[in-house]
Amino acid sequence: MRRRLLLVSNSTLYGGGYLQHCQEQIATFFGLHIKRILFIPYALHDQDSYATTVTEKFQSLGYEVDSIHKALNPVEAVRKAEAIFIGGGNTFRLLKALYEKNLVSEIRKRVLQDGVPFMGSSAGTNVATISIHTTNDMPIVMPPTLGAIGLVPFNINPHYLDHDSSSRHMGESREQRLTQYHEEPNTPSVLALREGSMLLVEENKATLLGSTRARLFARGKPATEYEPGADLSFLLSGESWL
Amino acid sequence: MRRRLLLVSNSTLYGGGYLQHCQEQIATFFGLHIKRILFIPYALHDQDSYATTVTEKFQSLGYEVDSIHKALNPVEAVRKAEAIFIGGGNTFRLLKALYEKNLVSEIRKRVLQDGVPFMGSSAGTNVATISIHTTNDMPIVMPPTLGAIGLVPFNINPHYLDHDSSSRHMGESREQRLTQYHEEPNTPSVLALREGSMLLVEENKATLLGSTRARLFARGKPATEYEPGADLSFLLSGESWL
Ligand SMILES: [Ca+2]
Ligand SMILES: [Ca+2]
Repeated sequence: MRRRLLLVSNSTLYGGGYLQHCQEQIATFFGLHIKRILFIPYALHDQDSYATTVTEKFQSLGYEVDSIHKALNPVEAVRKAEAIFIGGGNTFRLLKALYEKNLVSEIRKRVLQDGVPFMGSSAGTNVATISIHTTNDMPIVMPPTLGAIGLVPFNINPHYLDHDSSSRHMGESREQRLTQYHEEPNTPSVLALREGSMLLVEENKATLLGSTRARLFARGKPATEYEPGADLSFLLSGESWL
Repeated sequence: MRRRLLLVSNSTLYGGGYLQHCQEQIATFFGLHIKRILFIPYALHDQDSYATTVTEKFQSLGYEVDSIHKALNPVEAVRKAEAIFIGGGNTFRLLKALYEKNLVSEIRKRVLQDGVPFMGSSAGTNVATISIHTTNDMPIVMPPTLGAIGLVPFNINPHYLDHDSSSRHMGESREQRLTQYHEEPNTPSVLALREGSMLLVEENKATLLGSTRARLFARGKPATEYEPGADLSFLLSGESWL
């Protein structure tokens, strides 16, 4: 397993520019040897404009970007990619496009077998996990299944939000929604990444990075908090899922 | 079409008790001749406790409640129902249970053909519409389709929340999410019901009730606001969907 993943909660942190809060971690993650990154913009409707934003940001960090929506053969683009970045937007739309274009198993193979570095942000992080059952997005379209690329054997909830006790809104809190997920049988753990946090996975080691804590929800157990720097490798065990 | 519907945004309004903010409208809607209401609690995990809450509230308004989860034959319970109430919780879990128990077409028939009064709240309102594509809930389980009971030919977004410009959270606003829905082809209008509002449908007349305005999103058009009392019957036209 040559897996290398950078799974970011959010693309933009309050007060900052696109991917600004994690630019150091991005540069460290892709390093000196990667020259070109394959960008997957399917989570947003306007893919040209999305690709422009992403290209500008990655060029400022020293990387060229190829957006897969310009490729004649997307599967071939994944087969040739040095590195992959899937951006945020609507998770259902993104996963539906990945299935329609036969990219789910191709990305999984490239990342887990060939060691192609993979970065996801927000919806791009959701689809990297075992399933999108813990996305925050609206089901505006339906993919054939909520099972996803499966680069890790657990779920992530990006943009995790603590309950605001001053709010008068009566919809479910994020914690209540994740607790409802774990009322269902055989549901995996959910790593809830607050905005500003991200998970680095290097083979079988997982480390929390960023500026905020993460909250882990496991079925039948009280939720627990982890500080940046925490070793979360235990989440990667039990990999009968591969 | 003998349709009678009361579609409520939220079960509890800030500072009030369960269904307190809409109890007058409930009493007016079910009126003097209805004695028993069939309650459908599938959106929550603890259905016994849910049925107790609902029974107490409706008894205080003069109605007896039968919870369908106690019925030996749920389809038969719908066939005999004088009136139906579907409560809130997780919309995906609710719709999956309705399909598993073969209740979707049975409820549609009872309400549209036999004129059985139907009340929904939150998730119960989502499943009453054409589809659950505009639920706010997390997809903790998957129903066979997001197509729903279809008592009206449009979508509702319950618990609609205006963007809070003081928030530092960077996840999509509700308006952005609904705009993403309308980026998809052939998507129906979405009536966004703020907490405190509800839609009354009597045959082909639809009226906004409650204490807050509603916001209407139509594909390719600017969003529009409606005050309580507004006639929204135009949303019911074009009923080729039946
Ligand atoms: Ca999103
Ligand atoms: Ca709900």
